[in-house]
Amino acid sequence: MRELPLPDAGAGERARVRQDRLIKPRGALGRLEEIACWFAGRQKRTVPESLRPAITVFAADHGVARRGVSAYPPEVTAQMVANFARGGAAISVLARRLGARLTVVDVGVASAVKIESVVSAKIRPGTADLSLGPAMTRSEAERALAAGAERAAGDTATGANLLIAGDMGIGNTTASACLVCAVANEAPERIVGHGAGLDEVGRARKIEIVRSALARARSRRPADGIDWLAEVGGLEIAAMAGYYLEGARRGVPLMLDGFISAAAALVARALAPRVTEWMLAGHVSAERGHRIALECLGLTPLLDLGMRLGEGSGAAVAVPLIEAALALHAEMATFDEAGVSERNA
Amino acid sequence: MRELPLPDAGAGERARVRQDRLIKPRGALGRLEEIACWFAGRQKRTVPESLRPAITVFAADHGVARRGVSAYPPEVTAQMVANFARGGAAISVLARRLGARLTVVDVGVASAVKIESVVSAKIRPGTADLSLGPAMTRSEAERALAAGAERAAGDTATGANLLIAGDMGIGNTTASACLVCAVANEAPERIVGHGAGLDEVGRARKIEIVRSALARARSRRPADGIDWLAEVGGLEIAAMAGYYLEGARRGVPLMLDGFISAAAALVARALAPRVTEWMLAGHVSAERGHRIALECLGLTPLLDLGMRLGEGSGAAVAVPLIEAALALHAEMATFDEAGVSERNA
Repeated sequence: MRELPLPDAGAGERARVRQDRLIKPRGALGRLEEIACWFAGRQKRTVPESLRPAITVFAADHGVARRGVSAYPPEVTAQMVANFARGGAAISVLARRLGARLTVVDVGVASAVKIESVVSAKIRPGTADLSLGPAMTRSEAERALAAGAERAAGDTATGANLLIAGDMGIGNTTASACLVCAVANEAPERIVGHGAGLDEVGRARKIEIVRSALARARSRRPADGIDWLAEVGGLEIAAMAGYYLEGARRGVPLMLDGFISAAAALVARALAPRVTEWMLAGHVSAERGHRIALECLGLTPLLDLGMRLGEGSGAAVAVPLIEAALALHAEMATFDEAGVSERNA
Repeated sequence: MRELPLPDAGAGERARVRQDRLIKPRGALGRLEEIACWFAGRQKRTVPESLRPAITVFAADHGVARRGVSAYPPEVTAQMVANFARGGAAISVLARRLGARLTVVDVGVASAVKIESVVSAKIRPGTADLSLGPAMTRSEAERALAAGAERAAGDTATGANLLIAGDMGIGNTTASACLVCAVANEAPERIVGHGAGLDEVGRARKIEIVRSALARARSRRPADGIDWLAEVGGLEIAAMAGYYLEGARRGVPLMLDGFISAAAALVARALAPRVTEWMLAGHVSAERGHRIALECLGLTPLLDLGMRLGEGSGAAVAVPLIEAALALHAEMATFDEAGVSERNA
């Protein structure tokens, strides 16, 4: 079990005192007040610095995608990697708006990715079909975790104080559903959703695949989160879990994205429970199992806009809410400064 | 009944076609897609221009504030007006972040406001106590509506393409509750909330005041929304209603804020039903009656963060979601441009 730091409760409390002196009724900014205090505890300062977000998208393919669990063909993973690099994807647009650095990392795209701006950290060219056997070896899962950790170290070293991991991988809602069912002990029919646009027949097939993959994996008695990643996970999901663990180890807040992100977060928590102390949920997606996964993580999403794209897009859309919360906390006048009467006794 | 324009359905449909060509599964951006198409219809262009928001805060006092319906003393209205001007209020901070022009308008502060940057449009120094008799005359309500309309004209003339009205007025949740009960035909105990921080005893008193004010007003048979404003409204609420009506008349989208804003919107709708075609709900606040008022308006809020401050703050916090929706709509690549495979048949 990895040792992770805890937030600074004192800084959080001092931020709460400051919030209660700002010229508004106590609590009138709702969750924006909680967010400011949350960041104070993580940044260890009463008035947190403004955000410098970094976004890293991990891409990989899934052997199970050949089993008809996705509405899109597997080659879309590599095509989208090219579009992240060209700037035409949703996360490209959102990163530009935020002034956030966007890094794309190939941890397991099936085909060769020959794009200079894409970080090459390929563990293997896609996972094996998890419905037939382990998706990867334990050693490969460990290397994917390490590849994610390395990116968190890199993002933090360049000054990022908010880390967002995004995913790209046709078939990855199937792997994520397996992981959420395993770690949260949920039934497939409660968790498996329509992914990128599966119809009901496809969803029924996906449920059966998840059910049989879980049975197959359980018979091999996975000992920990890494074993579960190896059995039914994905290379990009493992990398995201590693990214979260290393971000938390460095004391940097993490903004979660959608269902894939929540699966990675659950795996990270299985490896180091304190990691959730460093997590905010950007949004709850339209994917069926996401709300349950967030409840299991103990996180309340900031947004509920019916998004279901991945890439880090839901997290990126939520960033301006954090920026607003921190600006209000830093820039509003206090009752004393402003000469405003306080509430009646 | 005022004639208001309708959105351009054709532009909205062309935007929908464009959305379905962007490199993402159809609908994967959820409400962000709907928002982009909504703006397309209002701006009459397939790819809407980016936002130039204007925020106008209308301030006024309420005679009923002397009846113990607020946790704060009435002089806070004037003190907060000074703080809007000095830049220390929540809406000051948020307007700066958005690069939005913030205008503060005195339509009825009880004391003399001697601040150069505050627009003086005082109809009267606060309303009369609505629990004892009409809050104002019909003529005064009409003049307050006109003052709001004049500000919408001014904001639009300087190029704003999104209008936000905020409120400041100690006691104005009482007037708003009366209006929502009257226009939406709701019972006071369903609508009256804690305002800026009233305790349960105070809320019970507030419910009784609203109930008796409604009975008093109904006995005078109000003929329309203007009569209701005169009986139980507020000068800033009337100005906000006028602002919305004039904004819609000019074909400019309106972003609603909290409970006071919803009360003004309901009055505006009573005067010209099409006004809601131009409205988005920025958030749902913690004030009890707000959710019901939004349902009555047929609007689904973008945010639910437990805010309850007014000033336009909830609307301002939601603006970056619109900006993200419009940037995605304008800047994402299409499947054709990007060479991405479409979904399986």
